Amino acid sequence: MKRSYIREILDAINENTISFAGGLPNEDLFPLKQLKKASKKVFKQKNSLQYSKSQGLDSLREKIANFYTNIYALPTTKEEILITTGSQQAFDIILKSLHANNLVVESPSYIGALSAFKILKKDIKDFKTIEQLENIINKDEIFYCVSDYQNPSTYTYTKKQREKIANILEKKDAFLIEDAAYSLLNFQGKIKKPICKFYSEKSYHLGTFSKIVAPGLRVGWIRANKELIGNILAVKESLDLHTSTFNQMLLDAYLEENNIFKHINKNAKNYKKRMNYMADCMEKYLPNFQFKRPKGGMFIYGKFNNIEDSMALAKKALEQNVAFVPAEVFYFDEKKSNEARFNFTNCDFEKTKEGIKILAKLTK
Amino acid sequence: MKRSYIREILDAINENTISFAGGLPNEDLFPLKQLKKASKKVFKQKNSLQYSKSQGLDSLREKIANFYTNIYALPTTKEEILITTGSQQAFDIILKSLHANNLVVESPSYIGALSAFKILKKDIKDFKTIEQLENIINKDEIFYCVSDYQNPSTYTYTKKQREKIANILEKKDAFLIEDAAYSLLNFQGKIKKPICKFYSEKSYHLGTFSKIVAPGLRVGWIRANKELIGNILAVKESLDLHTSTFNQMLLDAYLEENNIFKHINKNAKNYKKRMNYMADCMEKYLPNFQFKRPKGGMFIYGKFNNIEDSMALAKKALEQNVAFVPAEVFYFDEKKSNEARFNFTNCDFEKTKEGIKILAKLTK
Repeated sequence: MKRSYIREILDAINENTISFAGGLPNEDLFPLKQLKKASKKVFKQKNSLQYSKSQGLDSLREKIANFYTNIYALPTTKEEILITTGSQQAFDIILKSLHANNLVVESPSYIGALSAFKILKKDIKDFKTIEQLENIINKDEIFYCVSDYQNPSTYTYTKKQREKIANILEKKDAFLIEDAAYSLLNFQGKIKKPICKFYSEKSYHLGTFSKIVAPGLRVGWIRANKELIGNILAVKESLDLHTSTFNQMLLDAYLEENNIFKHINKNAKNYKKRMNYMADCMEKYLPNFQFKRPKGGMFIYGKFNNIEDSMALAKKALEQNVAFVPAEVFYFDEKKSNEARFNFTNCDFEKTKEGIKILAKLTK
Repeated sequence: MKRSYIREILDAINENTISFAGGLPNEDLFPLKQLKKASKKVFKQKNSLQYSKSQGLDSLREKIANFYTNIYALPTTKEEILITTGSQQAFDIILKSLHANNLVVESPSYIGALSAFKILKKDIKDFKTIEQLENIINKDEIFYCVSDYQNPSTYTYTKKQREKIANILEKKDAFLIEDAAYSLLNFQGKIKKPICKFYSEKSYHLGTFSKIVAPGLRVGWIRANKELIGNILAVKESLDLHTSTFNQMLLDAYLEENNIFKHINKNAKNYKKRMNYMADCMEKYLPNFQFKRPKGGMFIYGKFNNIEDSMALAKKALEQNVAFVPAEVFYFDEKKSNEARFNFTNCDFEKTKEGIKILAKLTK
């Protein structure tokens, strides 16, 4: 079992490294004070330290269900929500509850999902165009995608594409795992309707507090119909019994006392500024790196026109204390690539400029 | 995928139920104040809400390593510890990192382990005597056991038996998963040397804060040699990236400021009293239930001499608002049994007496 190259980079990073590699939210934006205040309420309840239900805390699931009803215009009840230990855990849980051995993924794709699929020894296929998807996917196979500000590509499906994908999955009677890690973290305040809005029968929609509140709490969720939730409940239980009671109650109290969407908007504004600054630096110093400014999420993704292998560049850059992620780790077959992913949420302006300039020198 | 019967019972329990069913520590003993105090230190650090290393927090792993060096007389470094999201997660992580398809378990065995093994579609065998173990286990297969105050049987291996098991495993070149969930929770303050003390090469020793501090934080650990830890790291990462940073830092700060062994001793004293009270009630009102008083842990286990099927009794009892766990769920092949498990940590004296009396009536 190979450890993910991203983790290896992260391990190699020290305080002198200019890092565009991770996918870490900016710590200065964490609602530390508000969570501390919320914790006072939680520490008054003994059962915050006790075992709790595998499906998750009722009142937190109710609040998450309301996100769907109000924000995504997808009427949802708490029975259709299951709390996971971070969104990452959802892959293992869902796959163990199904018999499917075949998955279809986007290329490039989220590395954490690929690694969860590979550990369960699933067969992975990819596709080039949505038209192709129809030829590739079969009954009861699983389509996995990130529909907004995809990690790493930053791509967001249009409404037409969403409907088309939903039609294909329905026609083929396939499953959908729709990862919405970044859906709420958008720079224009416009929330797109998820694909599962158009195909609710066999779909799982994954959400997480990691990108909008704090990843260190490891709380995510799965939205699916009651029957599917029932099937994954035993798997969740066998995996870690339940997600931390304390952390669920902490988030529940936080949501009770604060307007999370105000908080998200503040973050999105901050991130947009950082993204634009990095994009400006790239256009100025790294003209051979071709990319589109993303409308949300945490990454800039593009390709180097003047080099063939971004992995080789990444290794050279790391020697010069600059880290980014070469795209071959995002392809399930790990093919060579001239593409690369840059995180913009976690590096100050000065360092960003310095890092991009170092890369400019290395690619000359 | 069947949900565990214990969870089903727990779901059926309401405020009027006298429950001996769960395995819940007593909430009144949680160090709520101390954890609240510790949280003040944690909330001063932004990185408590950030992603962190898959292996776990260095300083917490160091403290856990010290448990082994000082309490178990097993010299251990932090490189030999990996933090898990509750001890339950360790089963999935370890099994995914090995090629073994066969497991040998005790009969009866911990239901959470059985369920984790079954979900991964492993073949399970059991054995009657330690001598038999030698004939049953093969190279690279896995032996799973709870060596102290086993759940459910409350059995504790003698030193001789531990050495014998270690010898067999070494001779057969098999793996050991030694679950120490209850090892520190003993009524006499005597800590036995674990089996892995006598067979360190291919062994995993599992520990947890659930029984000694608070289960709601979902923090456990695996102790193994560096090579084995290296192999499971990628699996842990693919499963939930890492265990909650906040909860790890909270426990680390708690351990910094408090003597955990004083806390454990206080709990053990309280539990011993509860165990003896329940045992007294059983001897008085339920003379056909045959058991030995355990020297640690959270359960009384025994068999009804006057009935054949404890599952049927459990169902009748639940109708009368009394819950306990019939033993067939603890056998991997779910065979009928007249044995039963009673939890004594979580029910007050009056209700305990009342519940035992109701069972007495039902078995007459």
